[in-house]
Amino acid sequence: MRAFIFRSSLNHFTRIVVFDKAQLLWVTEKFGDGAVKPRMLNFATPEPRVHGVPGTSDPVDGNLNVLCLRRFCAIVPVSVSHFVGLTLAGSALTNGALTLHSPVKRKLEAEKDYVFDKRLRYSVRQNESNCRFRDIVVRKEEGFTHILLSSQTSDNNALTPEIMKEVRRALCNASTDDSKLLLLSAVGSVFCSGLDYSYLIGRLSSDRRKESTRIAEAIRDFVKAFIQFKKPIVVAINGPALGLGASILPLCDIVWASEKAWFQTPYATIRLTPAGCSSYTFPQILGVALANEMLFCGRKLTAQEACSRGLVSQVFWPTTFSQEVMLRVKEMASCSAVVLEESKCLVRSFLKSVLEDVNEKECIMLKQLWSSSKGLDSLFSYLQDKIYEV
Amino acid sequence: MRAFIFRSSLNHFTRIVVFDKAQLLWVTEKFGDGAVKPRMLNFATPEPRVHGVPGTSDPVDGNLNVLCLRRFCAIVPVSVSHFVGLTLAGSALTNGALTLHSPVKRKLEAEKDYVFDKRLRYSVRQNESNCRFRDIVVRKEEGFTHILLSSQTSDNNALTPEIMKEVRRALCNASTDDSKLLLLSAVGSVFCSGLDYSYLIGRLSSDRRKESTRIAEAIRDFVKAFIQFKKPIVVAINGPALGLGASILPLCDIVWASEKAWFQTPYATIRLTPAGCSSYTFPQILGVALANEMLFCGRKLTAQEACSRGLVSQVFWPTTFSQEVMLRVKEMASCSAVVLEESKCLVRSFLKSVLEDVNEKECIMLKQLWSSSKGLDSLFSYLQDKIYEV
Amino acid sequence: MRAFIFRSSLNHFTRIVVFDKAQLLWVTEKFGDGAVKPRMLNFATPEPRVHGVPGTSDPVDGNLNVLCLRRFCAIVPVSVSHFVGLTLAGSALTNGALTLHSPVKRKLEAEKDYVFDKRLRYSVRQNESNCRFRDIVVRKEEGFTHILLSSQTSDNNALTPEIMKEVRRALCNASTDDSKLLLLSAVGSVFCSGLDYSYLIGRLSSDRRKESTRIAEAIRDFVKAFIQFKKPIVVAINGPALGLGASILPLCDIVWASEKAWFQTPYATIRLTPAGCSSYTFPQILGVALANEMLFCGRKLTAQEACSRGLVSQVFWPTTFSQEVMLRVKEMASCSAVVLEESKCLVRSFLKSVLEDVNEKECIMLKQLWSSSKGLDSLFSYLQDKIYEV
Repeated sequence: MRAFIFRSSLNHFTRIVVFDKAQLLWVTEKFGDGAVKPRMLNFATPEPRVHGVPGTSDPVDGNLNVLCLRRFCAIVPVSVSHFVGLTLAGSALTNGALTLHSPVKRKLEAEKDYVFDKRLRYSVRQNESNCRFRDIVVRKEEGFTHILLSSQTSDNNALTPEIMKEVRRALCNASTDDSKLLLLSAVGSVFCSGLDYSYLIGRLSSDRRKESTRIAEAIRDFVKAFIQFKKPIVVAINGPALGLGASILPLCDIVWASEKAWFQTPYATIRLTPAGCSSYTFPQILGVALANEMLFCGRKLTAQEACSRGLVSQVFWPTTFSQEVMLRVKEMASCSAVVLEESKCLVRSFLKSVLEDVNEKECIMLKQLWSSSKGLDSLFSYLQDKIYEV
Repeated sequence: MRAFIFRSSLNHFTRIVVFDKAQLLWVTEKFGDGAVKPRMLNFATPEPRVHGVPGTSDPVDGNLNVLCLRRFCAIVPVSVSHFVGLTLAGSALTNGALTLHSPVKRKLEAEKDYVFDKRLRYSVRQNESNCRFRDIVVRKEEGFTHILLSSQTSDNNALTPEIMKEVRRALCNASTDDSKLLLLSAVGSVFCSGLDYSYLIGRLSSDRRKESTRIAEAIRDFVKAFIQFKKPIVVAINGPALGLGASILPLCDIVWASEKAWFQTPYATIRLTPAGCSSYTFPQILGVALANEMLFCGRKLTAQEACSRGLVSQVFWPTTFSQEVMLRVKEMASCSAVVLEESKCLVRSFLKSVLEDVNEKECIMLKQLWSSSKGLDSLFSYLQDKIYEV
Repeated sequence: MRAFIFRSSLNHFTRIVVFDKAQLLWVTEKFGDGAVKPRMLNFATPEPRVHGVPGTSDPVDGNLNVLCLRRFCAIVPVSVSHFVGLTLAGSALTNGALTLHSPVKRKLEAEKDYVFDKRLRYSVRQNESNCRFRDIVVRKEEGFTHILLSSQTSDNNALTPEIMKEVRRALCNASTDDSKLLLLSAVGSVFCSGLDYSYLIGRLSSDRRKESTRIAEAIRDFVKAFIQFKKPIVVAINGPALGLGASILPLCDIVWASEKAWFQTPYATIRLTPAGCSSYTFPQILGVALANEMLFCGRKLTAQEACSRGLVSQVFWPTTFSQEVMLRVKEMASCSAVVLEESKCLVRSFLKSVLEDVNEKECIMLKQLWSSSKGLDSLFSYLQDKIYEV
């Protein structure tokens, strides 16, 4: 049985996840406002079964008890701005302060911070005539397609193979219709937190050989879809972009960021090798010295730093960010479609085959890492043993 | 019949150009000081014929009248700092305020601003023993050759195939004589405003198949001459460098800029694809995100921005700019010729074949665009329909 | 007979070196505090013989006299912050103010500035169990190997073929043992002043054909060792990094610099072609414009400039520099060895063969330059005729 505590500064929540081999036993979440909510992760297969709820008694098949939970270590795959002590897990469980409900599928966001976002997302979905997507919103605008990351099945727009598949489908549609360009942005305060580590852990725990291949191939095809997209891609980064969410930016053409955005790719820190062609594009754009500091040491770049080093085209003030982006995208969309596509073709022609090659290599490496017991142990032991604070 | 109004902030002038198919009908210019001067464009063939002067009556074959002129739209292929209303064309024509003289070949510069420049150019030309060039000045100095853009047949050092041919000839001379390096600068307040759009429109209107090939090949050979030049090229940018005038900078070796310089390559905005290898060199130097913002959205870079992003080596104060450059060039020219040439060879060896390839591709694309009626219509309709203000 | 005066701002000393063909006649040094000390350079072969000491009389085989010394020109291959007049050589010799001792092997450092460094070096050497190296210190730490440049046989950590061979040996050891990464730093206030020009002049004076091949091959193998090293290399730059000492930085993975560090590669200025793959890596990282200004004009970059342009990952305050670096290196060394090595492999895979090719070409060019009488004369005449002040 493996137990993990995730602490995320993005939404100020702590999550406790307990696995018994392939079985997801239970999930508990504590938000910044003190509310504690149990939650079931959205795993397609194997169907997660919640056997019981932990409390003062021994709830799950006799395997899980308070002492066991006390051994849990904090795991923070992303940035933590406020360190949260280890007392939570113990005290919450021993004094029974956990208010446990039956598991419900629920977005992982502190209510008060996200009221606006939820309303926005609701209105976004309401206004769509064609709601064929679950975790992204696709809007067909005059001259361009607008894809919004708005994940229902993961937190902070984290990427699962299913979400990546939806993005690929949307890219495929946009490549064949009359859109002149693509705008990619996100609903909420986070742009994209990269791969969903809860998902990753759950799946790799269950069947590391099959799942490592499946997930690595999902990443490969997702990245390939960006490399091969022929129309200009504009990205609007509203907030943190982490891991794969930051790595794909150089595969896009224009990157506009809000002052609130920041960028981090702590691959080596969480015992992974680079993905999304960042092993090639980051040194090209940022220089070897800074790229390696990001890939090896998890160096965090602010929007302004990312702009001055070439990862971002321009930084805008958060309050007017959307308007500034829309204004510019509409102006671009008034250009000739042929000129836009041929210009991108000229800019990318020399990079395309190299990027495809890099993408293959990176995904083969990830697959090897995940399918080897040593690589997986290193990943798991890191997640279990480390408290990582940035 | 097509009519165009050019408005340029570079020299604060407005120009009205009227074509009837291949025939250039007439050109009128209004300067910042209010003076209005008709002007004939310098087209080699077909010989431009000025049929008449517009006034209150219907002057040109009955095709041109005030109402027709009122429909003219403002066209600004380059930056406009002060928006100029559309009233000029109408009012000037209806109230007959246009003072019309017989067309004379004349430099397109507001007199008061350019007194110094003209005196300088005059003295430059007077001092040259060998005045074999019309639109550039070539000075053989101790250890280096100095080429100054000083166009007589275009405005703001805009490039026509004839001017590009002169630069190529000067480069060829400098490559075989005992010059250790080449200094490229410009007379006047503008470094180079890129391709001459008046010329382009005139020629493509007359015979788009033949002319598109001729102009594209002229650009190709011009850019190739820079790629293949074996001695170090130092560029001193005194003012705005636009389009092709900015694109060739990464093909040079050292770029020193005055604080007054700025850089813009609004290719997509004016319905063109990138030229001068900018589709390859700009992403390499500035990063994909900023390069694409320049190529697709016409993002303007100040001298300081261009310096901090790597397009420019160093920025100097305008008043001492020439002295600073001369001091450094003379010091470089005291180095060993072998060391200079071999060092450049080492730095460029890996780029040369790629750049030649990119150059070919870019020029084929431009040719295709100009020779297709669709591409040309898009270019013309943009120039006719848009008011572009930066 | 050739005579050279070296003036270095790094340690505020002046050195007079006199050669008669292959024979090193004598060396005299004047420090910033006024002390004048004769000194024998550490040449392995041919054995340097000091025939006598110059004074008011004619000391050396009748070939050297005061008049001869008065013709000496100041040579400063590196930066000079305070110009030192030419009177020294003459006055010191005519008034007999030179206090001459028998030549002793001695570190070239002003005593008062280097008390701390010497104590540090002493303690460093005392603490090493395995002192197999003469000019570097190698420490095996938990998870990583620490190489410190601490040259006994050259000044300011300048590189000779012998020192480069020691570094290669240390790299070779670190590549096969259980080190996860390599930390490279320096003892003293200078990181590395590049090739040892005293050595270069002495050797090339003696047998330019044989020595040019030997030295060029030593550089090639030294640079190759960095290109081929498979584990991450972290460099900590405590002070000035010049020539080859700056050129190898892009071959390392993470570069942390103290505020006191600065970077200069004045190859063309001292009549050399680029080395250490700088002809490829500098344009890639800094852009063609700045790279060429460094390679052709000897442009000096401060630590902050180098950081903002991508040569350096991050700059730290001098007083806490070592601690900051150690903290980060230890954190990196806690990562999985496989992940570190495979990440570096992904980042470098596309560069490796190009860099090896560039390295070969650069060294062939240096060999040609040194073995041609013209190239050597240019180098010597520069060193004899120029006073170079930065």
